[in-house]
Amino acid sequence: MHPAAPLLPPALDLVGIAIFALTGALVAARLQQTFVTMTFFALITGVGGGSLRDLLIGAPVFWVQDRAVAPVCLGVALLAWITPVRWWEGRLLEWADALGLAVYSVLGTMKALAWDVPPVPAILMGVITGCVGGIIRDVLAGQPSVLMRPELYVTAAALAACLAGAGMAIGLPPGLTWVLAVAAGFALRGAAIHWSLGLPAHRGPDPS
Amino acid sequence: MHPAAPLLPPALDLVGIAIFALTGALVAARLQQTFVTMTFFALITGVGGGSLRDLLIGAPVFWVQDRAVAPVCLGVALLAWITPVRWWEGRLLEWADALGLAVYSVLGTMKALAWDVPPVPAILMGVITGCVGGIIRDVLAGQPSVLMRPELYVTAAALAACLAGAGMAIGLPPGLTWVLAVAAGFALRGAAIHWSLGLPAHRGPDPS
Amino acid sequence: MHPAAPLLPPALDLVGIAIFALTGALVAARLQQTFVTMTFFALITGVGGGSLRDLLIGAPVFWVQDRAVAPVCLGVALLAWITPVRWWEGRLLEWADALGLAVYSVLGTMKALAWDVPPVPAILMGVITGCVGGIIRDVLAGQPSVLMRPELYVTAAALAACLAGAGMAIGLPPGLTWVLAVAAGFALRGAAIHWSLGLPAHRGPDPS
Repeated sequence: MHPAAPLLPPALDLVGIAIFALTGALVAARLQQTFVTMTFFALITGVGGGSLRDLLIGAPVFWVQDRAVAPVCLGVALLAWITPVRWWEGRLLEWADALGLAVYSVLGTMKALAWDVPPVPAILMGVITGCVGGIIRDVLAGQPSVLMRPELYVTAAALAACLAGAGMAIGLPPGLTWVLAVAAGFALRGAAIHWSLGLPAHRGPDPS
Repeated sequence: MHPAAPLLPPALDLVGIAIFALTGALVAARLQQTFVTMTFFALITGVGGGSLRDLLIGAPVFWVQDRAVAPVCLGVALLAWITPVRWWEGRLLEWADALGLAVYSVLGTMKALAWDVPPVPAILMGVITGCVGGIIRDVLAGQPSVLMRPELYVTAAALAACLAGAGMAIGLPPGLTWVLAVAAGFALRGAAIHWSLGLPAHRGPDPS
Repeated sequence: MHPAAPLLPPALDLVGIAIFALTGALVAARLQQTFVTMTFFALITGVGGGSLRDLLIGAPVFWVQDRAVAPVCLGVALLAWITPVRWWEGRLLEWADALGLAVYSVLGTMKALAWDVPPVPAILMGVITGCVGGIIRDVLAGQPSVLMRPELYVTAAALAACLAGAGMAIGLPPGLTWVLAVAAGFALRGAAIHWSLGLPAHRGPDPS
């Protein structure tokens, strides 16, 4: 009834989830938490956004019936536990997260469109897929979330999701739409990392 | 199978969502956030409560398959971005929010009853519909939520939802039940705004 | 289609929910909140974990179509409101919570397996059932959650859920699996209470 074909090659999909899960486990490691807490953070960051998307569009939650996703998140937590934190403190992880953000925002939009969600909510599903895992991670850790920081994070997800929605709406081939939307989202997030770009903030309450 | 007829005239429904969304966007504006963050807050505050209700009762999430709700929330965020905050600082918004609270609490209860939820859980679904969007907004913003403040907010939602559930249980006509329940919830919330009424607090741990 | 037989005798199930609900109501009481807030905390703590589990596995949410669960949570909030807090400050409640944690972690795993969830995600569903209500309670109250404390809480849930999953995988009779898994989880949590045991924490960022 609904499309069963995977939207990404399964191995690539697991790599993306593992990157997000690693950012979660490392937040817990920096807070000097236990292995069990690191596992919980790895899982919620890796699958949180996609879980909310699937609940909202009425799809079976992608990782619950899957034999590989949860073990991958557990393995990532173990890796983060046994390796020195400084291995992960370079910019590589940040750039990997930028790529994961762009890929998952496009994936979320494409999946929502495949489930007959209209374009504007489908774009929002893409943003949710890319960002919500990290937002829950930050709320649980009691730190300011990506949502509340001016750097271009949610914005890069929104760009990727919008281009994915627009490309499908005007009839571009899906493969081309994927490439363009991921490239644009990744480029914007990368520019934000490299040049510390941020959006302008609201001026707040009017000065007296 | 399940009732497809709308419970509120669609235009009125959108006005209610827009009011809630505006309160969310303004919280983000006061915190000097970016336009993207304001949009996220507008959306979660506008549709958060109804989304949780629909997930819990097993209904399709109301705004995901709808072409109008998400664009309305985006438009509200834009409006909040381009207008001075002081336009919205009078009591008008607070009173509009009070009306929205009463209407959505009744709507949530009525929808749950229409989906064969028993009376007590159905009343709780009404309270969730009215209050949860604002609670998520406050948790994300890191500020004390309406849930933790003594003012009569959740209580007014509970009154409206209880009267809606009671009216349907004793067989009042639906139209009359709507009017009575909304009027009572709005009157209680309005009295709380006007006279700064609050519930008594628990005395806390026993004095030594 | 799916197993309709209850996994626990209904009365025992309600006792477990009531214990969790009481811990939620007492957190609100210590924070000197109102009766309405105490009710909200009782409900979210009592049914939060099981609700998330049911949403994730695609089951109808257990308390929404049930006539007894929501009234029990309301009754518990009323009991917490009218009795002195010191009645509940002994260790009895902590031990009752330890038993509830073990029972619900096993119950969540068993229910997920009955819904054809593979073993590893099913074990995670058990942990979610046991712990998530308390985590949401703590986030709403703005206090450090059980997730972030080193004491063996989530770990005890994980032990009970793992043994339940392992027992079913190797073909132990369900009754024996129940007893062994609950006993092990309760014993570990009890040992943690009695001897203040905790997991080792991550060493944090590397020393310079």
